[in-house]
Amino acid sequence: MEENQQLAASVVQHMMQEDRFSQWLGIEVLEVSVGYSKITMTIRPEMVNGFGIIHGGIAFSLADSAFAFACNNRNNLSVALDTAIQFTKPVHVGDVLVAEANEIHSGRSTGLYHIFIKNQSEETVAVFKGTCFRTGKTLI
Amino acid sequence: MEENQQLAASVVQHMMQEDRFSQWLGIEVLEVSVGYSKITMTIRPEMVNGFGIIHGGIAFSLADSAFAFACNNRNNLSVALDTAIQFTKPVHVGDVLVAEANEIHSGRSTGLYHIFIKNQSEETVAVFKGTCFRTGKTLI
Amino acid sequence: MEENQQLAASVVQHMMQEDRFSQWLGIEVLEVSVGYSKITMTIRPEMVNGFGIIHGGIAFSLADSAFAFACNNRNNLSVALDTAIQFTKPVHVGDVLVAEANEIHSGRSTGLYHIFIKNQSEETVAVFKGTCFRTGKTLI
Amino acid sequence: MEENQQLAASVVQHMMQEDRFSQWLGIEVLEVSVGYSKITMTIRPEMVNGFGIIHGGIAFSLADSAFAFACNNRNNLSVALDTAIQFTKPVHVGDVLVAEANEIHSGRSTGLYHIFIKNQSEETVAVFKGTCFRTGKTLI
Repeated sequence: MEENQQLAASVVQHMMQEDRFSQWLGIEVLEVSVGYSKITMTIRPEMVNGFGIIHGGIAFSLADSAFAFACNNRNNLSVALDTAIQFTKPVHVGDVLVAEANEIHSGRSTGLYHIFIKNQSEETVAVFKGTCFRTGKTLI
Repeated sequence: MEENQQLAASVVQHMMQEDRFSQWLGIEVLEVSVGYSKITMTIRPEMVNGFGIIHGGIAFSLADSAFAFACNNRNNLSVALDTAIQFTKPVHVGDVLVAEANEIHSGRSTGLYHIFIKNQSEETVAVFKGTCFRTGKTLI
Repeated sequence: MEENQQLAASVVQHMMQEDRFSQWLGIEVLEVSVGYSKITMTIRPEMVNGFGIIHGGIAFSLADSAFAFACNNRNNLSVALDTAIQFTKPVHVGDVLVAEANEIHSGRSTGLYHIFIKNQSEETVAVFKGTCFRTGKTLI
Repeated sequence: MEENQQLAASVVQHMMQEDRFSQWLGIEVLEVSVGYSKITMTIRPEMVNGFGIIHGGIAFSLADSAFAFACNNRNNLSVALDTAIQFTKPVHVGDVLVAEANEIHSGRSTGLYHIFIKNQSEETVAVFKGTCFRTGKTLI
C-alpha cells in the first residue's frame, strides 16, 4: 500500500518533469495517491480570451493534467480517449484554481475520472470527465 | 447576406485582437462565415506533455477558439456551456493543425457546433463538440 | 424551505403521472428534494440488447428520468440540452438499479447534474451528466 | 470487399435477432456497410415523457442501436464506453426517425462514431457520439 503510494508519487514527478505545457501553465502538484491527484495554478494575463476571462482551454488543460496524473500513476501508461468539460463560472486573472481528480472506475483496459475545478472561494468553476485507455506499458 | 459575412469577419477580428491565449498559441484565422470558422496553428516544443506529444489541452484550446469564433460571429455574445473532445491520433512538435467549426444547430438561446482538427496529412487528430448559450448581448 | 420541498415533490409526481415511458420502464420514485432525485427500476427480459445484457438506452433512460425529476423540480420547466453517459459495468436481467441525481450547478438559464447508477450490490454501473436549459415556464 | 459487406450485414442481422429492446422500439435496419448503419423507427404514444414529447431515452436508444450496429459489424465485439447526445428539436408521437451512424475513427482497440438522427422532414433532432472499446472477440 505504502509502496503503491510512493510509486504513484514517483510517476507523477516523472511526468511533470517532462511536461513543458503544464510547466508553462505554472501547475504545482499538491497531492498524489493511487488513482488520485490534486493540483493548482494561478491565472495570468496571457491566459485570457477575447472576452477578458480565461480561455476555456486553460481550465481544460488544468483538468487534463490532473486527469493524466491520476490515471497514469499506477505506472500503467494511459491515453486520454474521450474527455468533456462543463463551465459553470467565469475565471479571472489572479484567480487561484485547484483541480482534484477522483477515480470513478478503474478497469483493466479503461478508466473513468471526474475532475472538479474550484477557485480560491471554493466555488466550482468547471467539471471535467475523462475516459482513458490503458496501454499496459510502464512509465518509469 | 454579404453584410452578415462582413459582420462575422469583423466580430472574429475583434475577438482575436483581445484573445491573448489564442495569440500565444499562434492561431491564424483562415476563413470565417456566419456560424463557421477555420483556423490553424503550428505545434511548438513548449506545447508537449510528459509523453513528448502535445498536451490534450492544446488541441482542445485550438478547437475551443474555432468554436468561439463560429458561435459568436452573428454578433450574439455566446458562452461555452458544455464541450467534449475525443483524441484519435497523437500530435507532434512541428505538426500544422487546422480546426474547422461547423454549425449543427443554431437556436435562439443555444447552439451546437462540431469541430474537426486535422494535421498536415489531412488525418483527423481530434473531434470536438461545443454547446453554447446565447446571451443576446452584442460583441461589437 | 419546507414549501420548496413540497413543491419539488408535487412537480415530480405530476411529471411521473404523464411520463408513459418511465412507467413502461417501471420506474419508482424513492426520494425527491430541491435539485435532487433518487429513483429505481428492475431490469426485465425485454430490456436486453443483442448481447444479452441491458441495452445502453435503458440505463440512459433511467438516468435521464432522474435528471428530469431533479432539474425541473423548482417548477422551472427545463429541457435537456446536452447529456452523456459512461458505462462501467454490464447490467443483467433481474438487476435492481438505483439512479441518484445531484445538482452540480444551478444557474438562472442553465443547470448541470450528475447521476450515478448503482446496482443491488452498490456497484456503479453507469455515470451520467446532464446540462439543461431553463425556460422560465412553470410545470404546475 | 464484397465479403466484408456481407459479413457486416450478417453481424447486424444476428445482433438484431437477439436485441429485444430494439425490437420493442420497432427498429428496422435500412442499410449496413462496414463501420456504417442506417436504421429507422416510428414514435408511439408509450414513448413520451411527462411533457408529451418523446423521452430523451428513446432518441438515445435509437442512436445507441445504430452505434452498436456500426461499431460491431467488422465482427469484432465492441462495447460502448462513453456516449453523449445533444437534443436539438423536440420529437412527437407519429414522427418517423432515421439514425445514420458514420465511423469517424477505427483503431485497433477503440473506435469513434457520430450518429445524426433526423425526422421525416429531414430536420436534425439529435446528435450522438459514441466511443467504443474493441474486445477482439467475434460475434458470429
